[in-house]
Amino acid sequence: MKIQSFKAEGLAQLSYLVSSGQFAFVVDPQLDISTYIDAATSLNVKIDCIFETHRNEDFISGAAALAQRLDIPVYHGPNADENVEYASYTSDGDKFNVGDLLVSVLETPGHTKDSICLAVSDTAISDEVIAVFTGDTLFVNDVGRTDFYPNEEHEMAGRLFESLQKLSRLPESAVIYPAHGAGSVCGGGMADREFSTIGYERRNNPKFSIKDKQRFIEEKVQETHYYAPYFEKMEKCNVKGELCTIDITSPAFIGNFDPFELSNQCYNNEIKIIDVRTKDEFCSTHIDGSLFFGEGLVSSYAGWFLKDNDKIIVVANSGEHASSTVLQLRRMGFNNVNGYIINVPVLTGDANVDKGLCSLSLTSAKAVKVHFDSNSSDWVLLDVRKQDERDSVAINGSTHVYLGHLSSSIGGFDKNVRYTVYCGSGVRATTAASVLRQAGIKTVDVMEGSMKAWQKLS
Amino acid sequence: MKIQSFKAEGLAQLSYLVSSGQFAFVVDPQLDISTYIDAATSLNVKIDCIFETHRNEDFISGAAALAQRLDIPVYHGPNADENVEYASYTSDGDKFNVGDLLVSVLETPGHTKDSICLAVSDTAISDEVIAVFTGDTLFVNDVGRTDFYPNEEHEMAGRLFESLQKLSRLPESAVIYPAHGAGSVCGGGMADREFSTIGYERRNNPKFSIKDKQRFIEEKVQETHYYAPYFEKMEKCNVKGELCTIDITSPAFIGNFDPFELSNQCYNNEIKIIDVRTKDEFCSTHIDGSLFFGEGLVSSYAGWFLKDNDKIIVVANSGEHASSTVLQLRRMGFNNVNGYIINVPVLTGDANVDKGLCSLSLTSAKAVKVHFDSNSSDWVLLDVRKQDERDSVAINGSTHVYLGHLSSSIGGFDKNVRYTVYCGSGVRATTAASVLRQAGIKTVDVMEGSMKAWQKLS
Repeated sequence: MKIQSFKAEGLAQLSYLVSSGQFAFVVDPQLDISTYIDAATSLNVKIDCIFETHRNEDFISGAAALAQRLDIPVYHGPNADENVEYASYTSDGDKFNVGDLLVSVLETPGHTKDSICLAVSDTAISDEVIAVFTGDTLFVNDVGRTDFYPNEEHEMAGRLFESLQKLSRLPESAVIYPAHGAGSVCGGGMADREFSTIGYERRNNPKFSIKDKQRFIEEKVQETHYYAPYFEKMEKCNVKGELCTIDITSPAFIGNFDPFELSNQCYNNEIKIIDVRTKDEFCSTHIDGSLFFGEGLVSSYAGWFLKDNDKIIVVANSGEHASSTVLQLRRMGFNNVNGYIINVPVLTGDANVDKGLCSLSLTSAKAVKVHFDSNSSDWVLLDVRKQDERDSVAINGSTHVYLGHLSSSIGGFDKNVRYTVYCGSGVRATTAASVLRQAGIKTVDVMEGSMKAWQKLS
Repeated sequence: MKIQSFKAEGLAQLSYLVSSGQFAFVVDPQLDISTYIDAATSLNVKIDCIFETHRNEDFISGAAALAQRLDIPVYHGPNADENVEYASYTSDGDKFNVGDLLVSVLETPGHTKDSICLAVSDTAISDEVIAVFTGDTLFVNDVGRTDFYPNEEHEMAGRLFESLQKLSRLPESAVIYPAHGAGSVCGGGMADREFSTIGYERRNNPKFSIKDKQRFIEEKVQETHYYAPYFEKMEKCNVKGELCTIDITSPAFIGNFDPFELSNQCYNNEIKIIDVRTKDEFCSTHIDGSLFFGEGLVSSYAGWFLKDNDKIIVVANSGEHASSTVLQLRRMGFNNVNGYIINVPVLTGDANVDKGLCSLSLTSAKAVKVHFDSNSSDWVLLDVRKQDERDSVAINGSTHVYLGHLSSSIGGFDKNVRYTVYCGSGVRATTAASVLRQAGIKTVDVMEGSMKAWQKLS
């Protein structure tokens, strides 16, 4: 028995190729299906079938595409919100043989209504379960979010509690293989440790260790999660089956460009420029009107600001960096990438030469501390962090709009006021500042070091 | 907490880089220490210390070299046969903090007297042990061999039993990280599964699951293991500390060579040619006098036939293949590789042109079945497999000499007799035939398909 795991950068989503002898199955494949086919070739195994632990909401599943390419079935849990057109349903107690492996299906609703877990034993050695694919039901140090069904939060949290009790009846020595690792939007408390067991989690996972159902439900419904607009499209795709495989050709290099023309296109919403260089590089010089998603923000935040068919240009540090960014965008269903730029011109200070380029101002924590109180009538200190971060500590007098909600709140911003944006370290604040500027709010700066710097001053 | 594992090809030895926050430790490093330094750089962690689970016998430890390069301590269990000069001793109950990790030492003698296991908890989450580095004490589906101390086999097996009981008192949900995987000479029953837990092994491991000490001892002392001559040098190296890092420069390409001259040097024992192409390629044409170690045999068998300062030439299919072969040889302490050859000339059938080249004859299983009985006075059927393979099934009338013991038994071979060699599939038989021919036994052939073909006929 061999388990090979694949981590999708940014999404922190984990998919698996599980093999025994000459046979294998895949769990929760991404759209770049050649990954699994190549891995199977390396191991000289035939992929027999695909399991989906639930209908994913944060990326396009590759199950339909992989199934079509290999002419193999996809198994999906029952009770999905809509008929999953490319899959066969499998339900509690169903068993599958793959090589020496026996795969038993456990229905584990809670995160979604169609969630399943897969308990696997290697019958060549024993009937005892040695591995459990836990999907978005159980993670290392966290459990799945239960906020996807409006007005059913309590019920879904209760169902997740029951599903976790079902998992706790498996051997405590069984190793868990979840669908996400640390960094995913599907749970904030995941540990960076990439291995764990049923027993260890049952005792030490802050949520799984709760013995009282009512307390579990109360804690779950108090969690703050966000629902990015692109999730809706993903959910539809993952019911219909997105039968095209991902376009893995690299994006085109754009060597010659006129920053002024691109800048105008940004402001006219004809294109979206996604700049993934570092925060410092972006603040120093960027194409005016471009949006900052560097330092790992593409998967978690680009989906809030892109529309389905937006024409996209990526600004990166290298072709490889551009390619990996494009892959992340495609996994989220944003396919219309026109090309990439790596040579953003330097600023000269001559407005004519610099046309279409700009920088982003930084304000020190000390300047905010000394001057903000006396200027707060025409100076807004804007906190763009998540609600739970703000609940734990915030700067007095600041206003809160979660970064993901910035576009939908833009009407409430005043073009005649100065906005200084802060977050945890200044990275998300840079994204927020770029979004505000592109929306025509021009007097925007970023609080350098944000809460980290603020707390050093206190 | 992150665990990165490194598998040394051929040896199937597993070493680990274990990190938490900005700190890390290494378990059982190989001599190519840049592997660990590079991995630590990728993770932005500082390696604080090195643990050796025991004094290894099948490869040169990289602990001394890594310790010297990074100026960090090596911790080694007590009661080693000799003073381990480069290490500090650590004993039962010692505790080490590395980042948030708490590493607890368990003395687990049995495989060797100085064997230790390391129980690790991630105190950021819990004091409960989540990972155990089990060295050569406990593998996935097997336990360590206990035959290294002449006249103490029973005692050592008994001590291993007690050590395993100590491990069984750890949480059954703890994940095990052994020092070897499937394919190692350190245990024949290892599963190809690369993950397991204390609880699963305690119930399902054929040896660990034995509850009765006496029965455990009896089963252990009945096992057949072999002790390659180079082990002795490894054991000495791993006490003194081999303070040079491995020479990782690639071997030199030998483009122009005279097969006849090389062949003469082989027969005069001036050089050893190690041919690692496939069995079929070797049988078709090779430099007369060269030894076959293709298809993965270098780590398990070359150590039986090479002497310390043998001048070695590698014959491979590509430069990469030659390089990985040289790395395997260097790990075993054979550093004197002069270069590699990839262009073995084709045979023409003209003895003058073909000087120094030869092929190796194959005999079919059917020919053996039909003719062997009536010709067995001047025709020896030679089985070179391990004792336990022969015990399970063998060809009637065949003679047994374990491949590793061939050199020391060579005096008993008759130059006037025909030898047909067999093993499981024909690979080790090809090695044996090459060894016999180089020793002057000229009428040698290989039984094609060996036991696999024989059993198809039965």
